[in-house]
Amino acid sequence: MTDAATNMRLKLPIICFILEVILIILFGVLVQYDSDTDARQWHNNTNSGHSDYENEFYYRYASFQDVHVMIFMGFGFLMTFLQRYGFSSVGFNFLIAAFALQWATLMQGFFHGMHGGKIHIGVESMINADFCTGAVLISFGAVLGKTSPVQLLVMAMFEVTLFAVNEYIVLSALGAKDAGGSMTIHTFGAYFGLMVTRILYRPNLDKSKHRNSSVYHSDLFAMIGTVYLWMFWPSFNSAITAHGDDQHRTAMNTYYSLAACTLSTYAMSALTAHDGKLDMVHIQNAALAGGVAVGTAGEMMLTPFGSMIVGLLAGIISVLGYKYLSPILEDKLKIQDTCGVNNLHGMPGILGAIVGAVTAAVATKAVYGEGMKDVFPDVANGDIDASYQGVRQAIALAVTLGISLLGGLIVGFILKLPVFGAPSDTICFEDSIYWEVPGEETAHVDLTIVKMEESEKLNC
Amino acid sequence: MTDAATNMRLKLPIICFILEVILIILFGVLVQYDSDTDARQWHNNTNSGHSDYENEFYYRYASFQDVHVMIFMGFGFLMTFLQRYGFSSVGFNFLIAAFALQWATLMQGFFHGMHGGKIHIGVESMINADFCTGAVLISFGAVLGKTSPVQLLVMAMFEVTLFAVNEYIVLSALGAKDAGGSMTIHTFGAYFGLMVTRILYRPNLDKSKHRNSSVYHSDLFAMIGTVYLWMFWPSFNSAITAHGDDQHRTAMNTYYSLAACTLSTYAMSALTAHDGKLDMVHIQNAALAGGVAVGTAGEMMLTPFGSMIVGLLAGIISVLGYKYLSPILEDKLKIQDTCGVNNLHGMPGILGAIVGAVTAAVATKAVYGEGMKDVFPDVANGDIDASYQGVRQAIALAVTLGISLLGGLIVGFILKLPVFGAPSDTICFEDSIYWEVPGEETAHVDLTIVKMEESEKLNC
Amino acid sequence: MTDAATNMRLKLPIICFILEVILIILFGVLVQYDSDTDARQWHNNTNSGHSDYENEFYYRYASFQDVHVMIFMGFGFLMTFLQRYGFSSVGFNFLIAAFALQWATLMQGFFHGMHGGKIHIGVESMINADFCTGAVLISFGAVLGKTSPVQLLVMAMFEVTLFAVNEYIVLSALGAKDAGGSMTIHTFGAYFGLMVTRILYRPNLDKSKHRNSSVYHSDLFAMIGTVYLWMFWPSFNSAITAHGDDQHRTAMNTYYSLAACTLSTYAMSALTAHDGKLDMVHIQNAALAGGVAVGTAGEMMLTPFGSMIVGLLAGIISVLGYKYLSPILEDKLKIQDTCGVNNLHGMPGILGAIVGAVTAAVATKAVYGEGMKDVFPDVANGDIDASYQGVRQAIALAVTLGISLLGGLIVGFILKLPVFGAPSDTICFEDSIYWEVPGEETAHVDLTIVKMEESEKLNC
Repeated sequence: MTDAATNMRLKLPIICFILEVILIILFGVLVQYDSDTDARQWHNNTNSGHSDYENEFYYRYASFQDVHVMIFMGFGFLMTFLQRYGFSSVGFNFLIAAFALQWATLMQGFFHGMHGGKIHIGVESMINADFCTGAVLISFGAVLGKTSPVQLLVMAMFEVTLFAVNEYIVLSALGAKDAGGSMTIHTFGAYFGLMVTRILYRPNLDKSKHRNSSVYHSDLFAMIGTVYLWMFWPSFNSAITAHGDDQHRTAMNTYYSLAACTLSTYAMSALTAHDGKLDMVHIQNAALAGGVAVGTAGEMMLTPFGSMIVGLLAGIISVLGYKYLSPILEDKLKIQDTCGVNNLHGMPGILGAIVGAVTAAVATKAVYGEGMKDVFPDVANGDIDASYQGVRQAIALAVTLGISLLGGLIVGFILKLPVFGAPSDTICFEDSIYWEVPGEETAHVDLTIVKMEESEKLNC
Repeated sequence: MTDAATNMRLKLPIICFILEVILIILFGVLVQYDSDTDARQWHNNTNSGHSDYENEFYYRYASFQDVHVMIFMGFGFLMTFLQRYGFSSVGFNFLIAAFALQWATLMQGFFHGMHGGKIHIGVESMINADFCTGAVLISFGAVLGKTSPVQLLVMAMFEVTLFAVNEYIVLSALGAKDAGGSMTIHTFGAYFGLMVTRILYRPNLDKSKHRNSSVYHSDLFAMIGTVYLWMFWPSFNSAITAHGDDQHRTAMNTYYSLAACTLSTYAMSALTAHDGKLDMVHIQNAALAGGVAVGTAGEMMLTPFGSMIVGLLAGIISVLGYKYLSPILEDKLKIQDTCGVNNLHGMPGILGAIVGAVTAAVATKAVYGEGMKDVFPDVANGDIDASYQGVRQAIALAVTLGISLLGGLIVGFILKLPVFGAPSDTICFEDSIYWEVPGEETAHVDLTIVKMEESEKLNC
Repeated sequence: MTDAATNMRLKLPIICFILEVILIILFGVLVQYDSDTDARQWHNNTNSGHSDYENEFYYRYASFQDVHVMIFMGFGFLMTFLQRYGFSSVGFNFLIAAFALQWATLMQGFFHGMHGGKIHIGVESMINADFCTGAVLISFGAVLGKTSPVQLLVMAMFEVTLFAVNEYIVLSALGAKDAGGSMTIHTFGAYFGLMVTRILYRPNLDKSKHRNSSVYHSDLFAMIGTVYLWMFWPSFNSAITAHGDDQHRTAMNTYYSLAACTLSTYAMSALTAHDGKLDMVHIQNAALAGGVAVGTAGEMMLTPFGSMIVGLLAGIISVLGYKYLSPILEDKLKIQDTCGVNNLHGMPGILGAIVGAVTAAVATKAVYGEGMKDVFPDVANGDIDASYQGVRQAIALAVTLGISLLGGLIVGFILKLPVFGAPSDTICFEDSIYWEVPGEETAHVDLTIVKMEESEKLNC
């Protein structure tokens, strides 16, 4: 269908080109290779004591690629569960992620990467940019099907900026730890998105209700996303932790948390259905909550035992959220949360923040040894004691909730401007507004006709 | 459909929670970080000679993730070829793998990882747990479509235990080599599963015959699984070999074996069809046999030349098996092997064991040099000669066949207990017994209606 | 349908077995492990100064696997966009890639890997073999839907040989740089394939026009290919650059080029559609042009700023090519380019070559420092100055264009031999000529019947 309001012929090119040109100019002025990517600096005699295998690339690039797969493949395909929104799910995910990672490089650089007025970048900044993008994609899940690509780019621009502010406060100003982003990524992305979708509340969304569901094949496409997110979550949580035991331990804790979460997800999905049948929505989403919930504590000495308890709880909370809380949020609070990000990222993110605060508060030198300086440097230095680190963690959660909700409120109102081309209530969850969509029919080979044509040709 | 016998509302939650709680308790009591994941130990002064890049994580984590993709994505999607069993294929694969990897950590730890009464874990134990899970998933392939998730969890529990026993006998007691698991994973998983499906023989399975086949799209989903298994098999076979040349050589041998196997698979598939048309079943499965068949010898000095010969043979054997042997097994021996695991894992696994025994028997110091101690430590030490290592390998195959067949026999009878909720013969290969299944219909946008509604709104 | 001309029952097995037997013999005579894969050599005392982590495996294997995914998953699924050609797209991609990587090992070995009459192989040769395979798959994209698997194998055999000749001239004889293959892979593969499809021109191809298009699900399968190619392109371009800063920098430049390219692709796709709707063909293909266009300059000190400009241009050129140039090529020049490889690989490849020549010509010691010897060894040695390196790069592009076009011309005529079993014009883009194709119908569970049968059973 063609509609003047949602026609993207000028709107989308204008915003894309303006944003990209601004990005290019700012990169030209501000961004430089860091010492591990710059030819001259890496080979500089003054630090010639190093060997090539000590380049940060070999510590983190494999993790980066796993994270990259989660962002583009995982999030993109997870959202293809909608029957008529597969192109937009993968395609808009692709577009806003490609924009957000560039903008995040700048915003995160402003706040914690400036060196003599320049932003230094390398594989670690690439991972951080992908992380920030992840938060935007979580918010995308809340508004999925109800927003134009222009709205999404505007949302991404503001959200990345606020993400960087919040991340700076949490990690640098407060000195909290959050390597896997239970707070900075999941809690932030979820509550920002939930507030945006609250402001964009559509009272007549039930006119598009018949498209707000899955079909058999779309659920299988979505499982591609789920499985990738699940498999690579250990890499996500460990991607920017300290070298050595820290990366190793974080990956392992996440692995066991996810495994336990999967069992509790299946259990709860069957238990909460009147006929005991499993619900794909739970499997696709709640089984991932175990990764979210160890995003803060994964690098700590949580032990596999502790990780499994956290994962078990995360799966239970998440399924209960999908089953009982989401309908209440929609009916009572007018929060239309398409993908249920409150259940996958919001509540498990808060759980993760609490687990992180508790685990930090009970850290002891006896357990961490010299490794304390990697995980809690201020505790290792003697500047603070462990229980105060726990307090920092708790404050960081409160700050994250505040900034995300307030940010979502403001950005939600900005997104209401009619110029951004949002679809009308009757035509949500539908690719054909923004995409050329081919039919579903398959050209069946009519063998008789083909044979007849062949015969005719031979006869000629 | 709803049926009291297959209703999972209580059965599945009960078994999931009981198993997970037992796992958590045992992890709490028995499991500890190893020296590469523990903060205190890694930073301990006494072994401070090491650098972070020497942490086992950097040697093996990328391989682990490739194996992880094979287990969850590869096996899961390979089995989606069935037209109405995609949710169960991916979903039950996910469930039993998540359980099996936790249980395998304990079982394998009991048999070869105890240190002062504790099981020490790290990336290598994670890979081994995934490997053990692979064997369970192979057995799952034999019974695919005919078992409830509760049956599968029970099967996994017993199979993991027996796997660990067999692995201990083969690798530790006998001193055989089997880095890629031709024997311990593929032969074991296949013959265990074949015996289970024999015991669970369903004389009236033809009542579900119309669903025991693929459709166009389901074959494409299955190819995702195939391609992932094929691509990452070099990582699978090399994941736990010794550092350096061993990992490198194993990956390369596997790469060439698979390439050769692919050509012989296509050749045999066309040759055995009366009209020369390729059969997706062969491409999806037989092309992988080359990876199975160098699972034992891949780490040895097999050479790419030798690997290619093995791959060529594996592809031929596997296609012939699908074409001629599987129908005989079903008709004469009453073995209903849904995925044809005998052809992909069973016979190629035995071939791999034989190739391993022969390659070991002809190993010489002239060829291996100082590298002999990595591959055949007992031969390098002078404890035994190479031909005796070959004998060990052959005994290991016999032991594996014996334990897997006997184990499958016993477990098959256990699984017959009606309480586990197996589907009836008329409703096998069908997702809707255990899953909420959406329709296939796509909500087509009726533009006329939408436009009319829009107009009405404007008129109001 | 069955047709004597296209029946592969003997043709395909004969060519597969002959090729594989020749490969095995040549591998047996010529191929040896290199010093990083050979047990004896790696452990040899004379070079015992090294540690296991210095094995080339750890520098490159993760990149190799990413490239491997691009070749088998990326290219294979990218081409599944056709509604009735998914089996062939993934399946023939699989077959010719498995052959080409073996043949490429030999051909590339002949030209730049002989050591005392032997070809030494390891992870770097595996990457190079996959790269060469990539060029063949690009050509496959031009002829997709119109060729038999036998034609494709014959094409692969000749193309790999010519690829190795061209690569030798460009990299070794001329001393040009092309780590990501803008010239040697993309330009070569594209213009070779375009010339082949020109020679194989089918005036009556419109008889198959109704199948030369996508359906909804086939476009989603194709997006799997697109997203994988996009995500792993940084690994592709950096896979064989020098250790350390070079791999690191190349990956990062590619990451930013692709991100910028994605924004310009979306912008141009909307801008060139009369109703502003995005076209999946553009998103699936043009968004990747940014990776192609930094294939040569990616390892140089291009800066993220420069990379983004190149990516922006590549996306614009590519979409314009799909929109306006492809129809002209087909109508005026009789070039039927199924996948539009001119737009994704051809023109962006030439752009990449030009960017590489310019970037090389302006290289200075002040920017590269000691790192100059990794990127431009002859400039670092003082043998030539940077501007002359730029000239080398330009000559390399001309040579590549010449060899690819001439090679495509000759090979095109060879492929016209009727014995190879090409499909007739009425039955192009159709799986069922070469594959057993199942129906699309899904066996719906008739609950009434099932229940009746169940009841009967109980009554008995």
